Amino acid sequence: MSSLTVVRYEREGQAHYGVLADGVLERLVGSPFEGIVKSGERDRLDAVRLLPPVAQPRIFGLGYNYRAHSQESQKAVPEIPVVFMKPSTCVVGHEDAIVYPSHGENIHFEGELTVVMGKTARHVTEADALGHVFGYTCGNDISDRVLQRRESSFGCLLAGKGYDTFGPIGPWIVTGLDPADQRIITRVNGTVRQDGNSRDLVFSVPFLVAYLSKYMTLLPGDLIMTGTPAGVGPISVDDVIEVEIPAIGVLRNPVVAEAH
Amino acid sequence: MSSLTVVRYEREGQAHYGVLADGVLERLVGSPFEGIVKSGERDRLDAVRLLPPVAQPRIFGLGYNYRAHSQESQKAVPEIPVVFMKPSTCVVGHEDAIVYPSHGENIHFEGELTVVMGKTARHVTEADALGHVFGYTCGNDISDRVLQRRESSFGCLLAGKGYDTFGPIGPWIVTGLDPADQRIITRVNGTVRQDGNSRDLVFSVPFLVAYLSKYMTLLPGDLIMTGTPAGVGPISVDDVIEVEIPAIGVLRNPVVAEAH
Repeated sequence: MSSLTVVRYEREGQAHYGVLADGVLERLVGSPFEGIVKSGERDRLDAVRLLPPVAQPRIFGLGYNYRAHSQESQKAVPEIPVVFMKPSTCVVGHEDAIVYPSHGENIHFEGELTVVMGKTARHVTEADALGHVFGYTCGNDISDRVLQRRESSFGCLLAGKGYDTFGPIGPWIVTGLDPADQRIITRVNGTVRQDGNSRDLVFSVPFLVAYLSKYMTLLPGDLIMTGTPAGVGPISVDDVIEVEIPAIGVLRNPVVAEAH
Repeated sequence: MSSLTVVRYEREGQAHYGVLADGVLERLVGSPFEGIVKSGERDRLDAVRLLPPVAQPRIFGLGYNYRAHSQESQKAVPEIPVVFMKPSTCVVGHEDAIVYPSHGENIHFEGELTVVMGKTARHVTEADALGHVFGYTCGNDISDRVLQRRESSFGCLLAGKGYDTFGPIGPWIVTGLDPADQRIITRVNGTVRQDGNSRDLVFSVPFLVAYLSKYMTLLPGDLIMTGTPAGVGPISVDDVIEVEIPAIGVLRNPVVAEAH
């Protein structure tokens, strides 16, 4: 299966998608989800600003989807996918700041393999699921543990996962990967804190696509953040957090204090 | 405070917003959230098809936001807002079908006062909150009680509230209402099942706008479904469900069997 690196970026105030090869972006006409159509224009990667790979996406998140993370969280492995949504306004891209809330107490990083849907999916089977996936990116499901646990104790989950800037994604989308064998490494200030592999997912990517599509229509550009491996921990102002999936790249974000 | 009835509708395959008076729609230029600008064109209400008042909205839902509903559900009144998101794909409009899932077991109606945001809101105070609200519509937070309770037992909530067609809203938006004194009536096949008033909200509309905006940026067109009063109950195929807020109108939806 051939692999493309699809980048969303800003050049001279305009947002574009492009396909990256050898440091050069071949601009696309419109969105890649409608087909890869090159405009003929080219931009150098080092002359553009990367944007989140999808603008204002719907984000479906997963909790406790790695056994080792459930263990470290003192949670049983769930019997059903623990699914929630992160609001589109939490999204930032590569090198964008994660804003540490002024009222935050225990904010954690969570490096995650993130699925980018390519085709509308409703009632798809596991066997057909990957045919509806466009590609994959790195994601960081930043979480306010205090609020998250409080919400979950009332049977819901939103604000604890939903602050502005709590959804870094990027640096770009890579197509044609095997979602069942991706290494996921998270570093804080250069020190490795998470080093997992998506082969250990409790609910696999094909299962999750089929599961969600049993209830709702998945749309091109929808993201599924598939859950985090073991090793989660706190972030602090001035930290630099990196989520690396070697077949994709490195998503890097500094943590800054809220100005408010 | 003057009150407008703002309708989203289809005429000859095109979607428009219009302001309704005396059965006539005065078409708007673009979205009402950018200002009420009339195009000069008019359509008769009986010659158009109503659409959901916002296209593909972000929907923030509330659980257990009326004491009497918490009591009937054998739940304590929550200490914090029980917030979740319903995916945009659950939205349907007035007279559209609610599809009863082939694997559904105990699907409930929930009539709700639904807030339509008008201005971007971040870190707004309760005192300033209503200045960021555009208006109000009727909503029906259709819920799969079996799946909802199962998800909540794992600390999350999405699929049980998120099926396609589980978010009827409409028939239109009315501005200038007092969100602290709206009667909410739900009828199943003409029989009143819920008859509440938003004065009994545990967390008021200004509180909810301020609360959400403490964490995330609320955007024009975002919906807040404020929770349901007592009297929830099951729906069945061939039922007709009506949610009436007298100052707004009646949202009516038939229940149909899933073809799948």
